[in-house]
Amino acid sequence: MPRVAEDRAPAEPTSPEQKERYRRILRAAARHGAVKEMERVQMLDVARDAGVAIATLYRYFPSKTHLFTALMRSQVERLAELAVEPVPGEPAEEAIARLLIRSGRWLLSTPLLAHAMMQSNNATVAQTPSAGVTEAFTDLMLTAGGFEEPTDHELRLLRLLEQSWYGILITALNGHITHEQAEADTVLVCRALLREREPVDDLTSA
Amino acid sequence: MPRVAEDRAPAEPTSPEQKERYRRILRAAARHGAVKEMERVQMLDVARDAGVAIATLYRYFPSKTHLFTALMRSQVERLAELAVEPVPGEPAEEAIARLLIRSGRWLLSTPLLAHAMMQSNNATVAQTPSAGVTEAFTDLMLTAGGFEEPTDHELRLLRLLEQSWYGILITALNGHITHEQAEADTVLVCRALLREREPVDDLTSA
Repeated sequence: MPRVAEDRAPAEPTSPEQKERYRRILRAAARHGAVKEMERVQMLDVARDAGVAIATLYRYFPSKTHLFTALMRSQVERLAELAVEPVPGEPAEEAIARLLIRSGRWLLSTPLLAHAMMQSNNATVAQTPSAGVTEAFTDLMLTAGGFEEPTDHELRLLRLLEQSWYGILITALNGHITHEQAEADTVLVCRALLREREPVDDLTSA
Repeated sequence: MPRVAEDRAPAEPTSPEQKERYRRILRAAARHGAVKEMERVQMLDVARDAGVAIATLYRYFPSKTHLFTALMRSQVERLAELAVEPVPGEPAEEAIARLLIRSGRWLLSTPLLAHAMMQSNNATVAQTPSAGVTEAFTDLMLTAGGFEEPTDHELRLLRLLEQSWYGILITALNGHITHEQAEADTVLVCRALLREREPVDDLTSA
């Protein structure tokens, strides 16, 4: 299993030059991750392609898992720029399904990279207290669904929805279902889970 | 990332002696996996503890990922012996929620081992055409829910339900939610997804 926790904490870029180097590293990681499996991506190649010293790369990203988790975070932040907002009168579940389908198409368009980013993010979530990109993605769903002051129950439904969608994408990436089935599944889980926004009386305990 | 695909295919035990050695290896893996992180489980210690040569261990399990995926499969088969069946008049979603809660408690009772088995099974599903333990678990859900001749739509709902439950367990294993929240979430996704057994007219497209 990939290890995430390291003795060294990753450094944060602060100066404009550091931020530019950091972005160059992420762009180089995206290029390498798009054309080969993560196991075959060499940190040294990424450093060379980004024009930074290998020590610089390791200072910001102590492992490949750190590197691809950071790449996913930066890409989710870019998705926010294309934010989906509800069309007047559109139910929240339809707007959120549009967001998830659009994001899913974008991820599935570079399957090797999607795999690297999602496995890294999973490993980070599994091995550290971090919630990975979950919080950033939850914000996108809140905007898409027009949730202004979400209740704890609504946040819980969005967390369950995001996990279900993740499972659907992984299943599609593995070739167990087609992209069309993945989109139909996404619509289904949006509808099923967001219908639970209204409390129901039956079946409240197992 | 852990590699699953290997040049060698794992051997299958056939004679009674081989089957007994295979079971001893799985029992030793369960003992080691219960008390230390998977990264720290040494194949050599497992072989020694099982009383088999290291070459024998590698013949059946070319990697730790193979070993812990096989352990999960054998444990799901044992769960089948305690199969949950619906009480007369009990809705399918309640019986399936009982199965998932019981199975979840059993997994969460040895968190390190659960983590090792779930990550290994995920890696196997992600990197090979295998569906991992999914099919064996689907059978348990079909029995619990009293589904005699499941439709494709029902099988799809059970697949989505299993994925959601997996996400919930991982979230609980990571300490992001309590075990009580995990059980409430399990009841919620069972209700939400199995309600979709009846086709609905609204919202059928995104």
